[in-house]
Amino acid sequence: MNKQLNISTFIGCEKTYEEAEVVLFGIPFDGTTSFRPGTRFAMQAIRNDSFGLETYSPYLERDLEDAFIYDGGDLELPFGNTNKALEQIHTYSQEVLEAGKKFLMVGGEHLVSLPTIKAAYEKYPNLHLIHIDAHTDLRDDYLGETLSHASVIRRSHDFLGDGRIFQFGIRSGMKEEFEWAKKHTYLERFALTTLKEKVLELKDVPVYVTIDLDVLDPGIFPGTGTPEPGGVTYKELLEAIHHLQQLNHIVAADIVELSPPYDPSGASTAMACKTVREMLLTLGK
Amino acid sequence: MNKQLNISTFIGCEKTYEEAEVVLFGIPFDGTTSFRPGTRFAMQAIRNDSFGLETYSPYLERDLEDAFIYDGGDLELPFGNTNKALEQIHTYSQEVLEAGKKFLMVGGEHLVSLPTIKAAYEKYPNLHLIHIDAHTDLRDDYLGETLSHASVIRRSHDFLGDGRIFQFGIRSGMKEEFEWAKKHTYLERFALTTLKEKVLELKDVPVYVTIDLDVLDPGIFPGTGTPEPGGVTYKELLEAIHHLQQLNHIVAADIVELSPPYDPSGASTAMACKTVREMLLTLGK
Amino acid sequence: MNKQLNISTFIGCEKTYEEAEVVLFGIPFDGTTSFRPGTRFAMQAIRNDSFGLETYSPYLERDLEDAFIYDGGDLELPFGNTNKALEQIHTYSQEVLEAGKKFLMVGGEHLVSLPTIKAAYEKYPNLHLIHIDAHTDLRDDYLGETLSHASVIRRSHDFLGDGRIFQFGIRSGMKEEFEWAKKHTYLERFALTTLKEKVLELKDVPVYVTIDLDVLDPGIFPGTGTPEPGGVTYKELLEAIHHLQQLNHIVAADIVELSPPYDPSGASTAMACKTVREMLLTLGK
Amino acid sequence: MNKQLNISTFIGCEKTYEEAEVVLFGIPFDGTTSFRPGTRFAMQAIRNDSFGLETYSPYLERDLEDAFIYDGGDLELPFGNTNKALEQIHTYSQEVLEAGKKFLMVGGEHLVSLPTIKAAYEKYPNLHLIHIDAHTDLRDDYLGETLSHASVIRRSHDFLGDGRIFQFGIRSGMKEEFEWAKKHTYLERFALTTLKEKVLELKDVPVYVTIDLDVLDPGIFPGTGTPEPGGVTYKELLEAIHHLQQLNHIVAADIVELSPPYDPSGASTAMACKTVREMLLTLGK
Amino acid sequence: MNKQLNISTFIGCEKTYEEAEVVLFGIPFDGTTSFRPGTRFAMQAIRNDSFGLETYSPYLERDLEDAFIYDGGDLELPFGNTNKALEQIHTYSQEVLEAGKKFLMVGGEHLVSLPTIKAAYEKYPNLHLIHIDAHTDLRDDYLGETLSHASVIRRSHDFLGDGRIFQFGIRSGMKEEFEWAKKHTYLERFALTTLKEKVLELKDVPVYVTIDLDVLDPGIFPGTGTPEPGGVTYKELLEAIHHLQQLNHIVAADIVELSPPYDPSGASTAMACKTVREMLLTLGK
Amino acid sequence: MNKQLNISTFIGCEKTYEEAEVVLFGIPFDGTTSFRPGTRFAMQAIRNDSFGLETYSPYLERDLEDAFIYDGGDLELPFGNTNKALEQIHTYSQEVLEAGKKFLMVGGEHLVSLPTIKAAYEKYPNLHLIHIDAHTDLRDDYLGETLSHASVIRRSHDFLGDGRIFQFGIRSGMKEEFEWAKKHTYLERFALTTLKEKVLELKDVPVYVTIDLDVLDPGIFPGTGTPEPGGVTYKELLEAIHHLQQLNHIVAADIVELSPPYDPSGASTAMACKTVREMLLTLGK
Repeated sequence: MNKQLNISTFIGCEKTYEEAEVVLFGIPFDGTTSFRPGTRFAMQAIRNDSFGLETYSPYLERDLEDAFIYDGGDLELPFGNTNKALEQIHTYSQEVLEAGKKFLMVGGEHLVSLPTIKAAYEKYPNLHLIHIDAHTDLRDDYLGETLSHASVIRRSHDFLGDGRIFQFGIRSGMKEEFEWAKKHTYLERFALTTLKEKVLELKDVPVYVTIDLDVLDPGIFPGTGTPEPGGVTYKELLEAIHHLQQLNHIVAADIVELSPPYDPSGASTAMACKTVREMLLTLGK
Repeated sequence: MNKQLNISTFIGCEKTYEEAEVVLFGIPFDGTTSFRPGTRFAMQAIRNDSFGLETYSPYLERDLEDAFIYDGGDLELPFGNTNKALEQIHTYSQEVLEAGKKFLMVGGEHLVSLPTIKAAYEKYPNLHLIHIDAHTDLRDDYLGETLSHASVIRRSHDFLGDGRIFQFGIRSGMKEEFEWAKKHTYLERFALTTLKEKVLELKDVPVYVTIDLDVLDPGIFPGTGTPEPGGVTYKELLEAIHHLQQLNHIVAADIVELSPPYDPSGASTAMACKTVREMLLTLGK
Repeated sequence: MNKQLNISTFIGCEKTYEEAEVVLFGIPFDGTTSFRPGTRFAMQAIRNDSFGLETYSPYLERDLEDAFIYDGGDLELPFGNTNKALEQIHTYSQEVLEAGKKFLMVGGEHLVSLPTIKAAYEKYPNLHLIHIDAHTDLRDDYLGETLSHASVIRRSHDFLGDGRIFQFGIRSGMKEEFEWAKKHTYLERFALTTLKEKVLELKDVPVYVTIDLDVLDPGIFPGTGTPEPGGVTYKELLEAIHHLQQLNHIVAADIVELSPPYDPSGASTAMACKTVREMLLTLGK
Repeated sequence: MNKQLNISTFIGCEKTYEEAEVVLFGIPFDGTTSFRPGTRFAMQAIRNDSFGLETYSPYLERDLEDAFIYDGGDLELPFGNTNKALEQIHTYSQEVLEAGKKFLMVGGEHLVSLPTIKAAYEKYPNLHLIHIDAHTDLRDDYLGETLSHASVIRRSHDFLGDGRIFQFGIRSGMKEEFEWAKKHTYLERFALTTLKEKVLELKDVPVYVTIDLDVLDPGIFPGTGTPEPGGVTYKELLEAIHHLQQLNHIVAADIVELSPPYDPSGASTAMACKTVREMLLTLGK
Repeated sequence: MNKQLNISTFIGCEKTYEEAEVVLFGIPFDGTTSFRPGTRFAMQAIRNDSFGLETYSPYLERDLEDAFIYDGGDLELPFGNTNKALEQIHTYSQEVLEAGKKFLMVGGEHLVSLPTIKAAYEKYPNLHLIHIDAHTDLRDDYLGETLSHASVIRRSHDFLGDGRIFQFGIRSGMKEEFEWAKKHTYLERFALTTLKEKVLELKDVPVYVTIDLDVLDPGIFPGTGTPEPGGVTYKELLEAIHHLQQLNHIVAADIVELSPPYDPSGASTAMACKTVREMLLTLGK
Repeated sequence: MNKQLNISTFIGCEKTYEEAEVVLFGIPFDGTTSFRPGTRFAMQAIRNDSFGLETYSPYLERDLEDAFIYDGGDLELPFGNTNKALEQIHTYSQEVLEAGKKFLMVGGEHLVSLPTIKAAYEKYPNLHLIHIDAHTDLRDDYLGETLSHASVIRRSHDFLGDGRIFQFGIRSGMKEEFEWAKKHTYLERFALTTLKEKVLELKDVPVYVTIDLDVLDPGIFPGTGTPEPGGVTYKELLEAIHHLQQLNHIVAADIVELSPPYDPSGASTAMACKTVREMLLTLGK
């Protein structure tokens, strides 16, 4: 007879914090979302629905139960105070990295990647960023706010600088953003075709991978706040993730923008779950 | 920084098993449901959405955090094997009662009350049953099966016998069931009006309370498998529960038949959550 | 082993046309619906979900299986041609009445009651009409169209004349409609309170009963095209239907405006099903 | 042939700003919502669905088209910056009041009432507040934030002071909030019964009315972020609004917390629409 | 402070009628829809959700704000009277064309393309028609009605005649329709592969483009009334639209059959929005 | 005037049992479903929505109305008693095969294929099995139960033995299952590419085809109980089915795991309908 308090983790992630090599945590924050909120519910939905998955990946031929992954839950953040929320995420990410572990953060809206990328950059000053998304996220501000989900990559550039950011799948933005990108980032429009070769270039440098799930076509992945038609298929995203196996030094990653309220059937959540499994196995190899 | 595995309990129910006076557990079983399955998801939804509630009840003027309640999660049951599932529920219920604790079980379909009532009866042979429901649940069998959600009270009568069962809110059944009830149970049709006086009669005997949430009108509580129009309002159910405060010897209780797939707005789940809170405070006073 | 083509009737309505006293049929028409279409799916949903009901009514203490009811399905009507559709409904209703049977028609939008009321009037020139609804339905035209769901009672008055129409539950209309009603119909606003006494007045004349389910409060009955808050509870509607038992000469009836697309949980359909059962037992006593 | 840009107003509210006595505006803000966001979509949904309503109220026997109401749309607010959003709302409200007009603001979450109440207080220092809600909203802070939907009435008390706040329908809060209320506000628990008499007391002072629609039972009004079972019926709310006709000096009002994503059938939006109509007619008499 | 009545247009379409080169208008009509109605809500949903889009197209490298587009709203049509509705659409289309402007009409069901195609033909007798759809729409009648969504291309052939109609993506119809097409139209089955070459043939003649969005696979575009599996991807449709840039003389176009009630996540509406943007930029180049 | 009881069949399947070559029947059973139940509703939904389809297949250039197909409805099975349910399915299947007919069974969960495959094997001892699915279904037991949807192919191997089972599209399973498959079945991972050649090998032996619709990517087919991302497109499945035309001796087939509760838009049901039509035409050629 079980006498523990009810535990709820992502399937197969039941190692202790101490023994873990990879820390999984959620950020239930969607405070700057401009169109349709709901990403705050993502990690809870992913934990619940991960039980429809197997722990074994026939693609990578590895099993979550053989990896060393700890799921500590979600950070509890203040509502309506963006700055304070970002600080707390930053502190938490630093602690994990200082303990010599990698992490997979699950958002939340894309802005929550800013403090996690920053923490990784502080530990690994030569950090490079792989950014998979439908949107450029290169606005300098959004309705006057410089901390916005639409600015997260621009804000990351503030410290990473030129030559460090690699963007794939981009199909939406203002004209100014596309022009800015020409000077400051590598940007592939509409597809993930060149990811394979760029991964080879980044083989031995520290890399952070940020995946905005809205890179997927909303026809197959409706569960997101800002659906942008014309995206990639799930097989294409899976293949891209499998290319990441070539990287020798991924230090952390995130998966953001699942919005369960726009996923009435659960299919988008299932895709997020499988993406989490494959990324955990990628980080924990 | 939290270093525990992610814990998920009903709000305010974080005492250990050892210190608990009341054990909360879920039964994710809907294997004999004839019309629309889904009650297996009830306890998970209730745990998630309990965070929209306060822990304090302004009705009872008590707080969950001051009570001694342990939430150990859900039993993991075999699929498609009704007998084995019922046995496991029975064993678990016995263990809790043997440890000198009370329990609140959350279904699942109504058949799962059979082993919990039986365990209570085995410990308290003078057990009386308060049954709040839309349906008589007095069929001898359903399509030939004697273990069915439509037979749970009839099967309970097999061991409790005449004079022990008090039914309220009943508005659906076969003609034969209503006639059988006239001889073997106390049955109030359509309302909960006489509950108040019956509670006074049962003041000092051991009592088990089983609440099938479909006693509520489906207009206000759509999230159930067999909606039966013409039911009571939530205020009426709340008032009925508050009458139970008069009982000196409630030994266990259950709340069954919430079906989250039929609750797209979450309002039915919110009602179930509040009912759980009020029943926990009733058991734990 | 069943060797018949798959039959799908409302539960307990499996008498042949020849032996039937009451004919149940559906009109899948919502062609003049101005706000939100969908009532065309009502009868199909009602047939499917009737299997969540018992055939026995503990209110009336009678069973559908003991009544003589035939369910012949839905009329197949042309799309986009209102006049032709109304003619076909009229012809069908006449045939049923000519065969000495009563009918219960299930809409569809309210306009489909016009040809069925007319057929009843042609056979019973002293026909009186009991109209239960949220809306007056007394417009002379709607955006220039005189055949509209918003005009069905006004069009019925064209042949029934003054003193024959009794309206209950009305809580929406133009100022002109309420004023017109003062001169030409009996109209109770907001409730069904006076139905009981009016039924006694109509005890021995031929009566047609038309029930627009939007008389129910949309809080409990969302599944309708033009939700009008402030309506009656299902218990109040049920009580009203039970008053109809006093009528000695109901000749036909209809139940309209269930719109399954706005009933994601099925609770409104369950209410419609129970209303159909009670009305069938009322017609078939 | 229409040659104007497409106009979208609440039904019957097409007077110009200059000729208007009442200004209707929406606040699409839900930035501090702790449980389930979505109220940002309320006013858009209300405008769209108001066309299922009549402009005439048979309760008040007045017509929106005869009143002088201007609908200027929604304020465009920054995302993720609570302070700046509140300032902009405050400025707008002041301008309307300075122009000698009343307003009906439609939220958004309840925090958006703080700047509108404040603007009214600045113009009418003797302002009294009628607060209809399920929740006390009297927390001093929520997870450390003093500007929160759970604190809006407490923050209003900061400037209004004792004896000015009248709360009705309250059924949820922390123990401390209920105790604080005993000293500083008038608070009726669970119902709206005493509103009628309090309105008579407030007959001749300036009054602001804030209606949090979650005072309604979530069984009938699921479309809200924090559903709290045990609430009032729509008829009870309607009756309460009709009592407000006795007030001689309502200066402004708001209706908050409709959350369309939790209203799959549209019934909650229909209730909000009718509440807006009745309040507009109350303000514009 | 805004003092205009609330304006609601498709994003970036705020030119006046006078300055506009392209007129955008909606037809909220689904009166002959045989299976599942709801397309009447399309244009409203598209306007609302267009704010999730950027005005800039990275495909065409042009911006809506630089084009001259007027959005005058939807035509208000009589319900249940197909002939009158079609006449009013015809008159409006004629007026726009007579004023020397192009138009993009958004349905509604496909029958509403008949009067707009006709108006274009009357002005441009050498009109050719590009028809992208899942269905042939070549029935001579549907249940006896010759004016039906299933007949719209057949009716267009009545005046256009042989050699003028080019159909792509077709995968559903009666055997007779496919045989008729062999003699009277150009028809590509299952795909849009030959569109590119046909566009070159039509380079210099006046062309009307009618896009029934159900050409998309319902797996990715569920929000339509008659889902027909086996359709094209959104990328394929986008590519087809981009081929249309080669046409020198597009005179008008339409996009029909989005049905928001079958689009619970909004993804289909997002596809319709992006299709509208790309077609507006195509017409307005 | 129709005087038959209401008949409801899959479109175009109205031959009598006696004249039929192919029998269509449904199994509304989901009793061992571990994750999300609901497949019991599949056949009812498929019958209802088949009326959105044409009876003619432009792919096969044949029409259902020209085939000899009988739709006898669904078997009525006991709830909660897996063994008894499987026996009844077995008996029914045997009777159909003994009468010299083929059948197409529509599930239900995948376990219901076990008795139908067994019946086919008993009549055709040289039976080969084509299995199209996302999951291996090769577990020896699931939580201790050997009769489970996750074991159906393993249980079929118990009697079919090695060399008889051909699996396609498989992308989920335990490591042990994939290893077991290497020894006992033919298994293609992730795609249906090799089906074409295997069909040629099986050209002249008796073949049973079992299609678990979750082989489709859940992005396009969300309506299933265990969504597994990374699946095939509908065009790929359609092409696979069309390859089956090469088989000279298909004796029976099934299509399982559509779960309508997870198909809010109906698109998955539409895919199931079209698959049923194509398989009926394949069996009935």
